[in-house]
Amino acid sequence: MQSFLWFISTLFVFLSYVENTFGGITSTFIRSQWPSVDIPLDNEVFAVPKGHNAPQQVHITQGDYDGKAVIISWVTSDEPGSSEVQYGTTTGKYDHSAEGKSSSYSFYKYKSGYIHHCLLDGLEYDTKYYYKVGSGGSSREFWFQTPPTIDPDASYKFGIIGDLGQTYNSLSTVQHYMEELDPFKSYLHRYPTPYLASKSTSPLWYAIRRASAHIIVLSSYSSFVKYTLQWMWLREEFKRVDRKKTPWLIVLMHVPFYDSNDVHFMEGESMRAVFEKWFVRNRVDIVFAGHVHAYERSYRISNIQYNVSSGDRNPVPDRSAPLYITVGDGGNQEGLAGRFRDPQPDYSAFREASYGHSTLEIKNRTHAFYHWNRNDDGKKVETDSFILHNQYWVSSFRRRKLKKHRS
Amino acid sequence: MQSFLWFISTLFVFLSYVENTFGGITSTFIRSQWPSVDIPLDNEVFAVPKGHNAPQQVHITQGDYDGKAVIISWVTSDEPGSSEVQYGTTTGKYDHSAEGKSSSYSFYKYKSGYIHHCLLDGLEYDTKYYYKVGSGGSSREFWFQTPPTIDPDASYKFGIIGDLGQTYNSLSTVQHYMEELDPFKSYLHRYPTPYLASKSTSPLWYAIRRASAHIIVLSSYSSFVKYTLQWMWLREEFKRVDRKKTPWLIVLMHVPFYDSNDVHFMEGESMRAVFEKWFVRNRVDIVFAGHVHAYERSYRISNIQYNVSSGDRNPVPDRSAPLYITVGDGGNQEGLAGRFRDPQPDYSAFREASYGHSTLEIKNRTHAFYHWNRNDDGKKVETDSFILHNQYWVSSFRRRKLKKHRS
Repeated sequence: MQSFLWFISTLFVFLSYVENTFGGITSTFIRSQWPSVDIPLDNEVFAVPKGHNAPQQVHITQGDYDGKAVIISWVTSDEPGSSEVQYGTTTGKYDHSAEGKSSSYSFYKYKSGYIHHCLLDGLEYDTKYYYKVGSGGSSREFWFQTPPTIDPDASYKFGIIGDLGQTYNSLSTVQHYMEELDPFKSYLHRYPTPYLASKSTSPLWYAIRRASAHIIVLSSYSSFVKYTLQWMWLREEFKRVDRKKTPWLIVLMHVPFYDSNDVHFMEGESMRAVFEKWFVRNRVDIVFAGHVHAYERSYRISNIQYNVSSGDRNPVPDRSAPLYITVGDGGNQEGLAGRFRDPQPDYSAFREASYGHSTLEIKNRTHAFYHWNRNDDGKKVETDSFILHNQYWVSSFRRRKLKKHRS
Repeated sequence: MQSFLWFISTLFVFLSYVENTFGGITSTFIRSQWPSVDIPLDNEVFAVPKGHNAPQQVHITQGDYDGKAVIISWVTSDEPGSSEVQYGTTTGKYDHSAEGKSSSYSFYKYKSGYIHHCLLDGLEYDTKYYYKVGSGGSSREFWFQTPPTIDPDASYKFGIIGDLGQTYNSLSTVQHYMEELDPFKSYLHRYPTPYLASKSTSPLWYAIRRASAHIIVLSSYSSFVKYTLQWMWLREEFKRVDRKKTPWLIVLMHVPFYDSNDVHFMEGESMRAVFEKWFVRNRVDIVFAGHVHAYERSYRISNIQYNVSSGDRNPVPDRSAPLYITVGDGGNQEGLAGRFRDPQPDYSAFREASYGHSTLEIKNRTHAFYHWNRNDDGKKVETDSFILHNQYWVSSFRRRKLKKHRS
């Protein structure tokens, strides 16, 4: 089974599920409230390398809808240099090459390095590729593994880390750039997205398919109310979801719908009012959000009965609803959001103000394993885990069984 | 008392108020459901004039924060021609002139005329100005009256017509332009706003002061959640409101918060979740919206107790809350929105699916008269009217009286 670490700057994804057993857990684990230091990551990849104009901050993004392309991104600091990537299936032997582009931006006195993006497309599924960036003595080799063919029973492991070093101040800055109609600065300079492949008009919302999962990324800070471009795009994207090909339907966004931390409480209410009914109707399996610097998981609940006229109110248990998981705990200089609301609301299943990361191991079309691992001063401690049943296959199986039973 | 007709394309404003007497009225007036024909307007102003390159579609907008400037806009169709406006306080004698700018845009096969905007600033308050646009035999003279000095007891009459010939399809088009980062096409080409004067970063949200009123215009289709530019701007703009100078605080937006028509029901819920508490805290007098092609007025109610955790629910009577009036009844080729929800919700005071327009006559710092006039096949029929008490002056007077009574 392959794996893919997902940390698209501001948020990201995961999970699994047994039966609803109401009564939530507020973890008693207490961590000192220092802002995070860096999460230990592979130094070979993330350390600043030596040598003239050596490529640094090398990262990789799916480059198309279905996983047969990647975008390689890196930064050089001395001069623009080459944006070429050489690649092949044997280390040191590069029988393909692709030409990318570089750009830079400035913000007041800050001047970015030269940021390179290079698309490698027409790749084979399930294949290990070696690639080289940079030139001469400063060139560096890395590798990646392409995902398996889109297949309903493909097993696949995702890792999800949210809010990794982004602050909401920096988000305001992103927003500022966006509204100033200069959207390719900063954030978008550094994080390319394959938005055109999913017919999106903005790099801030898009979808990809990977193995047995269809993953939708939404933008909390762009307009999303009815008739806006994001709303129109999502309506169409849900029609493109084929649970027979990709049984797992996962949504990523920045601001959570269901979270009971005092910090940012109910900031997701605006988007919930618009999109929650689509999540329920389309049987989304799981919704991952960031923003709140703590971990929290909901039960399957929905609040789509709420109606300003009728008096119906508040989240109720709903088997068709997704699970909501806040994973804004990747580690961020703002520190943790330590104060949860008391009492713990009915919708909240588990919550803890620690740094950590999640994994979602899809086993087949019906089952996946979810784990949240607390990062306890460098030690990985499994803290919240369970089995997730697919919302489409398990529930339609249940429907068939029920129908048979009744007839 | 002066008057000012407000019809900024997609919506606009007004109202007055006696005591809450719950139990709403659904008017039994029935109008045939034909899409609207043009509301009769002054032909001298709105008819297409004769002559080579004659100025047409002449309209006027407040050009600054406090009412000492106007923007004159017009269209010429033969050639760009002059963007100059000559003006003065005597008809036919123009001792001032100002130079404007013209532009045009195209959309697929459509090509706009030459759209001119010219700012006339440094004007005197409460003064009638005559102005001339166009040149030679095709030039045309019009006049406008500047508002009185900003003064808490200035009387002033506003007219409000919403959704006058704009469709939500056209709004989608506007939105499309916005997100395509080409925001000066179409809508913004034609409707300039004095947004810089209120420190806004976008022409789609801004504020002006006029006589004894502070008027805030919000954008339903731009992002507005916490940390966005519109949110940050509104937070600051509320701080700039000085009810001792401008007792009347009026908000205009496109999508209503409280409306009980089946069409567009609860589409304003997203923005309500973000801004309603500010409206209550800042004692907004009245909120005008358009979008729904019918007339509706709420009681003073708020839903800020609603909390996804606590179970508190639904709008309750609230003396600190604004009145909400939907005036999306200006007349629009989409026709009327004739189906109201049954039963009429508690928050709805009066509703009727007719074309019409509203007037708000501010008398002094404490009282204003509100009228909604049905346009019954060209006849103006006063249908909903009442006295509005100022939310700042009357309520603080009440507080003082109460305090005195208690001590």
